[in-house]
Amino acid sequence: MVKVRKSDNFSEWYLETIFKADLIDYGPVKGTIVFKPFGYRIWEKIMSYVDREIKKFGTQNVYFPIFIPESFLKKEKEHLEGFSPEVAVVTYAGGEELSEKLIVRPTSETIMYPIVSKWIKSYRDLPLIINQWANVVRWEKRPFPFLRNTEFLWHEGHGIHSNHKESLNLVLNVLRMYEEIYQKIFCLYGIAGKKSESEKFAGALSTYTYEILMPDGKALQACTSHDLGQNFSKVFDLKFQDKDQKLKYVWQNSWGFTTRSIGALVALHGDDYGLVLPPKLSPYQIVVIPIYDKKHDKNIDQFINQLKDSLNNYDFIIDSSEHSPGYKFNEWELKGIPLRIEIGYQEVKNNLLTIFRRDKRERFVLKLEELKNNLADIFAEIEKNLFEKAKRFIEENTHNVQDYDEFKKVINKKRGFIRAFWCENSYCEEKIKEETKASTRCLPLNASEEKGKCVYCGKRAKYRWYFAQSY
Amino acid sequence: MVKVRKSDNFSEWYLETIFKADLIDYGPVKGTIVFKPFGYRIWEKIMSYVDREIKKFGTQNVYFPIFIPESFLKKEKEHLEGFSPEVAVVTYAGGEELSEKLIVRPTSETIMYPIVSKWIKSYRDLPLIINQWANVVRWEKRPFPFLRNTEFLWHEGHGIHSNHKESLNLVLNVLRMYEEIYQKIFCLYGIAGKKSESEKFAGALSTYTYEILMPDGKALQACTSHDLGQNFSKVFDLKFQDKDQKLKYVWQNSWGFTTRSIGALVALHGDDYGLVLPPKLSPYQIVVIPIYDKKHDKNIDQFINQLKDSLNNYDFIIDSSEHSPGYKFNEWELKGIPLRIEIGYQEVKNNLLTIFRRDKRERFVLKLEELKNNLADIFAEIEKNLFEKAKRFIEENTHNVQDYDEFKKVINKKRGFIRAFWCENSYCEEKIKEETKASTRCLPLNASEEKGKCVYCGKRAKYRWYFAQSY
Repeated sequence: MVKVRKSDNFSEWYLETIFKADLIDYGPVKGTIVFKPFGYRIWEKIMSYVDREIKKFGTQNVYFPIFIPESFLKKEKEHLEGFSPEVAVVTYAGGEELSEKLIVRPTSETIMYPIVSKWIKSYRDLPLIINQWANVVRWEKRPFPFLRNTEFLWHEGHGIHSNHKESLNLVLNVLRMYEEIYQKIFCLYGIAGKKSESEKFAGALSTYTYEILMPDGKALQACTSHDLGQNFSKVFDLKFQDKDQKLKYVWQNSWGFTTRSIGALVALHGDDYGLVLPPKLSPYQIVVIPIYDKKHDKNIDQFINQLKDSLNNYDFIIDSSEHSPGYKFNEWELKGIPLRIEIGYQEVKNNLLTIFRRDKRERFVLKLEELKNNLADIFAEIEKNLFEKAKRFIEENTHNVQDYDEFKKVINKKRGFIRAFWCENSYCEEKIKEETKASTRCLPLNASEEKGKCVYCGKRAKYRWYFAQSY
Repeated sequence: MVKVRKSDNFSEWYLETIFKADLIDYGPVKGTIVFKPFGYRIWEKIMSYVDREIKKFGTQNVYFPIFIPESFLKKEKEHLEGFSPEVAVVTYAGGEELSEKLIVRPTSETIMYPIVSKWIKSYRDLPLIINQWANVVRWEKRPFPFLRNTEFLWHEGHGIHSNHKESLNLVLNVLRMYEEIYQKIFCLYGIAGKKSESEKFAGALSTYTYEILMPDGKALQACTSHDLGQNFSKVFDLKFQDKDQKLKYVWQNSWGFTTRSIGALVALHGDDYGLVLPPKLSPYQIVVIPIYDKKHDKNIDQFINQLKDSLNNYDFIIDSSEHSPGYKFNEWELKGIPLRIEIGYQEVKNNLLTIFRRDKRERFVLKLEELKNNLADIFAEIEKNLFEKAKRFIEENTHNVQDYDEFKKVINKKRGFIRAFWCENSYCEEKIKEETKASTRCLPLNASEEKGKCVYCGKRAKYRWYFAQSY
């Protein structure tokens, strides 16, 4: 059990939970974390889903060096301005001071594109969609495990296309793919939308995002997909010969999904008893706990052996350690394993299984022979329950506000998502942020045009945007 | 086809081959490389085999930060001395000069162990075997793609045990596992053995290695497994409470397998027509090439569709691009795809497949319905042929020498492995290296004790060691 209640103090609960559940440890350098086996296994599961999905777009995996010469980063002005306050710099290597400083990649556009420019000659070479799984470094002033780390793990995909339509199409398809992964694999609801000009990726034409609301009412940008237009191709001279024989600049996009997603998972599904993991991402879907009546009981072990057959399609663990059943219950609850199967004398005698569902914290009983055919349904129900709870939370904490007074009241009292008309003038956006700490999160993809007035300046506004304080 | 002949100039041939086969590109920082899709796919296949094997030892994957505070690296003296000339150093981050310099990991002992020391309390927590797949940086004065890169990819496994016997057992089991992967998956023969005192890993009690001979007669240390003894546990205070209630230092080991292995693969199997990939590591095992008689022929396409069924268990590609058959043959030969299936008018008419085996550069014919049942055997034969060829090469280039004159003659004339008695005194080893550039490579695991005289000083020597010039 977690000492701090989630509803009392979310961040203390969060920190206690990730440490007690054995997800991470702190690294010695501020803002870095160590992924312990249980935490890293979740990331491995995430990687396998994401990797499979991105390959459906024709993506090919690659690996580019971690060191970017400073002069490369400086080529795209907006990109440089966006990232230069956050970078770590190697000045010294192999016993000598370097003649050019090396940036530890915060993202790889500026090292990939000048090299890829040599790979592309004609329209026949396009689209080229490449991806890498890698570590990146962004110096964080206020680090927080998973959500803001100095070094984090991610995949970064980069699409290179002969025309804008195809490129933008991929940008949006990737966002929808991320949304589906969040909804079906993470069981997390969020808002898919477009970022404002001031909130977009440094160097992009536009950025698309999936925004999740955290239990403390702050928003989390859960992944992004950027339409880079020709901003980078013009700087890095990425040209191709089109069908009409003319040399043209390519159209590009980039998109990423990071270990931050684990933070969202912990925060939204967890409860006062610890983690609650969605079945597809849990290192084990099932933990089997033998409950011996003082002495080791061979009948129980035999019963468990029979049981194994039904569990073959799942990751399961049999905890036969020396600890007491109560200790084990608590331990695996903390770790959020979706199902616990308890096998004691009574169960063996009656050929029954006592099953504990972590998400609802409910016990139920099943005949041994019923288990195999029911497991898929049980997991589907767990997923549905988790997703609906997460969706309900966001819906209940999304507030339509009509005027700025209401905006400020809601932000001060409840936080959460605020839906409000905004004229899309960056002046109003900046003022709102200054006065309420709430930034624009996104314009939902499915937003419909209305006749409204900007919540700040009262001028004409077409769309209701999402605002929130954020991580 | 490669312009330079392998036998004329190995290193030029090697460089031409890896670029023409599209494995890599150079990074902008000296000594760094970009893994292109075809090259990275080989690494992904290697990773999947190695990861599966190391998990059989109970290994759990983790991820530790890339930045090591300088003071951590300095704690183990020998380790520091070994690595400090090679490290890259971050001195500046987040817009400020750092109060402590950060080392970009050359290997992770010094960041892992102080943290892991907090995870271990009792003998019940042991053995703890952890592993990470990561990038590491070692500044190379004379870089060479795959074989010596400033940044490379690897896995590093770390075993922590309650006693030396168990630890040393893992060290050797890991080495045997690597040997099996090299022999069965890479089809590469080598010598498994123990390093001398002066050639062991900085900070280890002893280092075990798999040594491969390259076509130019220089040896390549193809992977290593280190018995760290208690050297690190004493420095980083890694203690556990044993069954007898006493606090004891743990026994440790570490072991790694890197992208260098791709270089060995290219070098040993490749020929004057390019790469020759062993089936299990080739991105595609089979390429199917339709040979249209001027016009696109639907019968050929239908025939290929029928064929697909037989290929389901393999990674295959159908090259229907606009290029001529001759161009495609050359291209896929350069890339080393084990089997090419050519489908033209004649094949369709006679229900036959013309198959080209890359390793022997031989064509043979098979009935369509025979393919499915024969593929596994064909690949097994290819593997056998590759392995035996590689083994023969090493055997033919291993020279037993009796005295130092012969030693010098062989090194100057033919290079290769030299088997010679050595008294195990580091003075002789140093002198030999100074005078011939040949270092001790290893004492084979299966070496038997003999009565011999050191090839340098003539004093009593028990074992014949392997010597060679090396990468």
